[in-house]
Amino acid sequence: MSKGCIKVIGLGPGDECLLAPQARHAIEEAEAVVGYTGYVKLVPSELLEGKEVLSTGMMAEVERCRKAVDAALEGRNVVMVCSGDPGIYAMAGLVMELLEAGELFDKVDFEVVPGIPAFTAAAALLGAPLMHDFASVSLSDLLTPWEKIEKRLEAAASADFVIAIYNPRSKKRAGHLGEAVEILKKYRDGSTPLGIVNRAYREEQKVQVATLETLDVNDVDMQTVLIVGNSSTREVAGKMLTPRGYANKYDI
Amino acid sequence: MSKGCIKVIGLGPGDECLLAPQARHAIEEAEAVVGYTGYVKLVPSELLEGKEVLSTGMMAEVERCRKAVDAALEGRNVVMVCSGDPGIYAMAGLVMELLEAGELFDKVDFEVVPGIPAFTAAAALLGAPLMHDFASVSLSDLLTPWEKIEKRLEAAASADFVIAIYNPRSKKRAGHLGEAVEILKKYRDGSTPLGIVNRAYREEQKVQVATLETLDVNDVDMQTVLIVGNSSTREVAGKMLTPRGYANKYDI
Repeated sequence: MSKGCIKVIGLGPGDECLLAPQARHAIEEAEAVVGYTGYVKLVPSELLEGKEVLSTGMMAEVERCRKAVDAALEGRNVVMVCSGDPGIYAMAGLVMELLEAGELFDKVDFEVVPGIPAFTAAAALLGAPLMHDFASVSLSDLLTPWEKIEKRLEAAASADFVIAIYNPRSKKRAGHLGEAVEILKKYRDGSTPLGIVNRAYREEQKVQVATLETLDVNDVDMQTVLIVGNSSTREVAGKMLTPRGYANKYDI
Repeated sequence: MSKGCIKVIGLGPGDECLLAPQARHAIEEAEAVVGYTGYVKLVPSELLEGKEVLSTGMMAEVERCRKAVDAALEGRNVVMVCSGDPGIYAMAGLVMELLEAGELFDKVDFEVVPGIPAFTAAAALLGAPLMHDFASVSLSDLLTPWEKIEKRLEAAASADFVIAIYNPRSKKRAGHLGEAVEILKKYRDGSTPLGIVNRAYREEQKVQVATLETLDVNDVDMQTVLIVGNSSTREVAGKMLTPRGYANKYDI
């Protein structure tokens, strides 16, 4: 039996135009493709022809990663697909945890193939909101205590980071986003621009620029990425601009 | 004269295998390609054939962006190339500033095409160090006061963010990295894993895992990205793993 391998790959935001050749090639070469049903749908269908596809529903992350590891242990060439970058709130880490727990690193080749993260895709659609130091915080408290999330929001806001917010709102935790905005408003003016990007580079994409004050939480769901400007960010031509500081030093 | 356009695009880390089709297509369609000499070299040479190439050296960012804007104002289809993502410490913002200063948004079409950022490329080579909330800080004080950089390091370290460090060391500011590490050690154990990635996905790529204590600053230059783990990050099979928290909730 030849040694199996498992590549955890990033599909990028979802449109084929942002799928890197290395990730496409990994899918082409794979015998089995594993992933959340919603992400497997983002894979160009011709790439899946003739392959075993092992997809699972939401919340079944451990089961999904175990399937990928088991298939690789059988000697197969396995790809685990993630949207965005596989190392940002995705499956690269959980696959590593399972390989570690089973002491399998010498039995299976492991590789991570980067992808365009959701927050930089959202940022591109908004203009240039990320240009200075930034932080990313997920509001999901399924695996992280809410107190820790609050502490990180406080720290990022107080030190004037641009802040990307992942998993901003689900039906079960409808109130968290409002609490997060209250924390941000302690440190930043209500007029601070805030980008709301739904389904970047997918069908029904929607891009809006609001402010901390005018944000309507009903515009936000689990597929939204929010980008909160820092104290210098301004709205320009309907987009967001965080200056890097050139205007202070050069004649612009 | 037809309306010109300017697309600020991300080449990704540099290898063609991570160049997204949308960015490749933008270069193919362009009449003029503008960029820092070092980044223009990363563009596959066949894509540059028959095009005007306007490259400038380091530190000439304003001049470079002005060339791109001027060429677009002449009605041309211009691409400004950046390595990594064009919105992260790159040129998307400065091009916007110039368009704003000249009130040119109705005279030129402006678009940002995202790319795989240097820090996620570095993270992929390191395994899965970014899996939890993260912050990115540039140690360059050319445009940002050092006190602000220190404040951000303090905040990110105190709230247990994984931290990506860009522009960690140049000849002119050889001491800043040491000062940054001292700040991090106030909040995080000396044994915290720290990834050192030089020239990710380029010739002479080098990937090492050290700790806050064992970091040798001589391994670091301006082309290095550092990734500092959070309090849970551990070294696993020569790589870095930041668990997301599944092991606390599920049987792994």
